[in-house]
Amino acid sequence: MNFPSKLIEEAVSEVSKLPGIGKKSALRIVLHLLKRTEKETHSLADALVAVRTQIHYCKKCHNISDGELCSICLSPKRDASVICVVQDSRDVLAIENTGQYNGLYHVLGGIISPLEGIGPSDLKIDSLLERLQHTSEVKEIILALSPTMEGDTTSFYLQKKLKPFSLKISTIARGIPIGGDLEYADEITLGRSIVSRINYD
Amino acid sequence: MNFPSKLIEEAVSEVSKLPGIGKKSALRIVLHLLKRTEKETHSLADALVAVRTQIHYCKKCHNISDGELCSICLSPKRDASVICVVQDSRDVLAIENTGQYNGLYHVLGGIISPLEGIGPSDLKIDSLLERLQHTSEVKEIILALSPTMEGDTTSFYLQKKLKPFSLKISTIARGIPIGGDLEYADEITLGRSIVSRINYD
Repeated sequence: MNFPSKLIEEAVSEVSKLPGIGKKSALRIVLHLLKRTEKETHSLADALVAVRTQIHYCKKCHNISDGELCSICLSPKRDASVICVVQDSRDVLAIENTGQYNGLYHVLGGIISPLEGIGPSDLKIDSLLERLQHTSEVKEIILALSPTMEGDTTSFYLQKKLKPFSLKISTIARGIPIGGDLEYADEITLGRSIVSRINYD
Repeated sequence: MNFPSKLIEEAVSEVSKLPGIGKKSALRIVLHLLKRTEKETHSLADALVAVRTQIHYCKKCHNISDGELCSICLSPKRDASVICVVQDSRDVLAIENTGQYNGLYHVLGGIISPLEGIGPSDLKIDSLLERLQHTSEVKEIILALSPTMEGDTTSFYLQKKLKPFSLKISTIARGIPIGGDLEYADEITLGRSIVSRINYD
């Protein structure tokens, strides 16, 4: 694309580095900014810089947080006997929005992926084990990782590491999504959902 | 959505004001920033502020520009006898990228839309007429507005205003897109393409 202005070109190049935004959307965003007030662009830019420079990660669960500890770890209403292990902060948000979980979390910050050079030592696994060593309150660990090769590898590694603590270890149910049509389900999911069928009783 | 951090919430709210970005994409973008260096976020924020505060609009054609006049108006290689009238700067970019046009432009900055309260006086129409009064070089005006109710209204209004100048006035061809299937074309487009059929000769 030929841009009529260097400023536009630079802004488009910066914006199109963001996930899910191509050159055309970036241009649309940049031209949209020109239609709004300068103040609005300043508050957008300030919010982005603030989130990057002032954000903390919870010392306990590594979730994103405004302070040293996140609001979930600090809340006396949460059930401290269950820890749900997830890949990143987005998963915490997704589970929180279901309203079905009231325990604590542990954010690994990734999953084991030899292809991308991410090993167990790059994740917050040691921090989880340390957390368990300092408390006897925890009774169950839920491994809520993606049902992919990498997710399953990480789950398997964690199961081995967690064995000595003799806790209940569970994982989220895999199966046909609610409202999903059997016809359109992939073979592996359908197969797994038959193998791990639930008895009516 | 419940956000674990006020900073995240504010940044998501700012980012989701951008066109084509919902809450989920905004969150994805904000969390992505956390994974990059502070410097990268600063250069994104700076580019956005720079584009908003330092951009100019060409005094002649109202296209976005780095200086007083845009690179197209300044270029001696462009054919100054044709002016293509478009709705906004994005249309200039789109036409430039076809490589099929070598004339000048005039950016209206919108189209007549009574529903949105945009009348002829809100657009750069007077500026176009003034431009034509000061030169005898222009021989043709191409009206390249969207084939919508508003676009057609604006084209009609412009035709009336341009009549006294006795120039050639044309509009871009409407019809079946190249590579488009007749079967999937809407009735109005197909109808128009038959009415304005092109003779082989």
